[in-house]
Amino acid sequence: MSSPQRPPLAHVFKGTFVHSSASAPLEILHGHLLGVDDNGTIVFVEQTDQLEQLAKTWGFKTSDIRQLSKHEFLMPGLVDTHIHAPQYSFTGTRVDLPLLQWLTAYTFPTEAKYQDSGFAEEVYTRVVRRTLKNGTTTACYFATIHTDSALLLAEIIDKFGQRGFVGKVCMDVNDSVPQYRETTADSVQETERFVRELLEKKYPRVQPIVTPRFGPSCSEDLLNALGDLALTHDLHSHISETEEEIKVVENMFPAYQNYTELYDKNKLLNSKTVMAHGCHLSEEELKLFSLRGAAISHCPNSNFSMRSGVLNVQKVLKHNVKLGLGTDVAGGYSASMLDAIRKTMVASNSLQINKVNETGLTIEEAFRLATLGGSQALGLDNVIGNFEVGKEFDALLINTKASDSPFDLFSADEFEVMRTGLMIKTLMEVMWGRLMIQTEKVC
Amino acid sequence: MSSPQRPPLAHVFKGTFVHSSASAPLEILHGHLLGVDDNGTIVFVEQTDQLEQLAKTWGFKTSDIRQLSKHEFLMPGLVDTHIHAPQYSFTGTRVDLPLLQWLTAYTFPTEAKYQDSGFAEEVYTRVVRRTLKNGTTTACYFATIHTDSALLLAEIIDKFGQRGFVGKVCMDVNDSVPQYRETTADSVQETERFVRELLEKKYPRVQPIVTPRFGPSCSEDLLNALGDLALTHDLHSHISETEEEIKVVENMFPAYQNYTELYDKNKLLNSKTVMAHGCHLSEEELKLFSLRGAAISHCPNSNFSMRSGVLNVQKVLKHNVKLGLGTDVAGGYSASMLDAIRKTMVASNSLQINKVNETGLTIEEAFRLATLGGSQALGLDNVIGNFEVGKEFDALLINTKASDSPFDLFSADEFEVMRTGLMIKTLMEVMWGRLMIQTEKVC
Ligand SMILES: [Zn+2]
Ligand SMILES: [Zn+2]
Repeated sequence: MSSPQRPPLAHVFKGTFVHSSASAPLEILHGHLLGVDDNGTIVFVEQTDQLEQLAKTWGFKTSDIRQLSKHEFLMPGLVDTHIHAPQYSFTGTRVDLPLLQWLTAYTFPTEAKYQDSGFAEEVYTRVVRRTLKNGTTTACYFATIHTDSALLLAEIIDKFGQRGFVGKVCMDVNDSVPQYRETTADSVQETERFVRELLEKKYPRVQPIVTPRFGPSCSEDLLNALGDLALTHDLHSHISETEEEIKVVENMFPAYQNYTELYDKNKLLNSKTVMAHGCHLSEEELKLFSLRGAAISHCPNSNFSMRSGVLNVQKVLKHNVKLGLGTDVAGGYSASMLDAIRKTMVASNSLQINKVNETGLTIEEAFRLATLGGSQALGLDNVIGNFEVGKEFDALLINTKASDSPFDLFSADEFEVMRTGLMIKTLMEVMWGRLMIQTEKVC
Repeated sequence: MSSPQRPPLAHVFKGTFVHSSASAPLEILHGHLLGVDDNGTIVFVEQTDQLEQLAKTWGFKTSDIRQLSKHEFLMPGLVDTHIHAPQYSFTGTRVDLPLLQWLTAYTFPTEAKYQDSGFAEEVYTRVVRRTLKNGTTTACYFATIHTDSALLLAEIIDKFGQRGFVGKVCMDVNDSVPQYRETTADSVQETERFVRELLEKKYPRVQPIVTPRFGPSCSEDLLNALGDLALTHDLHSHISETEEEIKVVENMFPAYQNYTELYDKNKLLNSKTVMAHGCHLSEEELKLFSLRGAAISHCPNSNFSMRSGVLNVQKVLKHNVKLGLGTDVAGGYSASMLDAIRKTMVASNSLQINKVNETGLTIEEAFRLATLGGSQALGLDNVIGNFEVGKEFDALLINTKASDSPFDLFSADEFEVMRTGLMIKTLMEVMWGRLMIQTEKVC
């Protein structure tokens, strides 16, 4: 049945599509056709023998099809569920101290500089361009305590066409760098202003999140007030990254059973919550995460670099807790989600080496966490994460034979998607339904 | 005192030089002059205030000096102490099995193909070009059991100007893939032929090594016969990579106390020996390594990827055992020594997380292992490894602001050498005294 009144499709691709589903960590669809309508929505993913019928239904001609070469494939955009935009300015340079000392020595003094909107514009522009270049089509950014800089970050994300969440960091406790904190009232009011003003911009793909830094940076009053905002808005924070941090929380909040309960009793743990790290969460705490539908962002580069701990991803998944991957720049030294996939494998393998787990994650499962898993953690799995019909077309075109590519293909090679997760660093083109960005070589 | 009869210098560089010494894991020499004579030997490294005197002594003019930009620096070439050239053909694609099964399923069948010199030429050309591109100026290659292919590898290394060691792999035991093994007599005779023919080529920078694969692939007769060759030639092999392998060795050679003794009693453990991995060596075995002056090649990417174990580098260094880093392609998925540096940090940090060690290696120490440490392990520390006067000029020119570089520099940045070890992936130019190769962007 042809529909002549239907607007023409924006794209029809023919070739190989690689993505994940609930049942298959890595599904490789060779010889398929994928159609995208004018709104950027995927309208079909079918085998090529359906071409005639599809062309009739959707009103396209063979000449409208973009045929991928045999060295190319499309995969979903990568989802970075946890990254600190202001810390990008010192990425890869300061990982010689454990978390609490690292915050005092490097992070708080750096973040304090983002009162200066010129400095913020330079770094925020670069981090958005870099993550896009690395194939991150969706990123969840912590900014600083400065509302206007955080709004500027949102503007830049929108300008470059990335999908993103932005949080103005909240912290009313900071004994080590007292110039970098707010009053409780300011923190709440500025968060309200931030959320309101960002929503007023009506950016199609950039949304505000509420971001108390973590337990040690917040008074109970602040947590509780932010809990009211978390009833209507997404909430991101950190939990149980290091053992030292947990002890600080125990001392500051002795009335709570554990770190998770601190957040939960202050209305900060629900199905719109994402907590970074969680390396040292107990079974009991994971059960509460599962019960509330809260998600975890696994940031293995950061956890190794700062010697924080190793999250047992398989244990988390057994508890049916949603889980995505994050770069956690600049605790993590890489702004690439491909690195996050590789480090997820190292973390999982290290648990197997230490006989904590009998088996490890597969590279396919790590790939799923970086795409579909991230979309689930961010509550976007009805919009992005794989190539299901009805979702937005949010994709990377991978060319495994790009000139000057950092790896070699051999004549004997089959199409080796395994390289994707472990080591692809090649030419990517980042695509959305209505927007295509030619990116450079990435690592 | 001027020397008019002295031949003119090949190079004089002015700028920043970064290298390691026994006392300083990372020494940054700003504002220095480095001179290289016509033989490729470093003849001076001095502060710029010595310019006038140096120009007079060495007979060069100011216009002869190559002035590095403030975003450039020179560092020693990277030393890969352990890489399997034939396995490069499946790098990054097959790391889903533990060692012994991995050898049977992927590695032995692949290595068997190198009887075909056309296939060997393709892969060996690419691995040498790739490692050079990645800044590896010296590499220690295992080939296969095929003598002529191994000689071809040596020819290719010489042609591209890399410094290298090549071993024809010896193995007379292989029950799982019986078509890929030699008779004991063939293995010994072909090794003798390989060594003789390679030495006859008189390549200036390529030398033969004797390479029994590892305990489980060798009969006692073979080990003992190779022990005679090891009296005069460098010997490389593998030891204690996985617990399963150790059990196989215990069963095959019950007369020996441990794996190290198997090699030692067969004259395979001396000051010209390099053993890869050693993840599970006991204190007693490390003492024997130290006593014999044998070295260890630490291959952390491989150890994590294949879930073999984690070498405690600090323990090895405490025993005064020489130690370099290796990529161990294709057990390791990366042919880059920068990756080996980063993974060395992960390995060390994981030991700290697991409270095996109280402190970890610094990034500077990992950098030293990849340069000076590697040169010591390979017995080349009188030739390369750092910028000491009298050594060959074997260097990488790093441009931290290369166009299309995979990381950003910020206006507020100081010269951040830390990036080197952790995450530099930028334009390198590989240099020797008489040879300069412009390389591409590397990771
Ligand atoms: Zn974080
Ligand atoms: Zn090896």
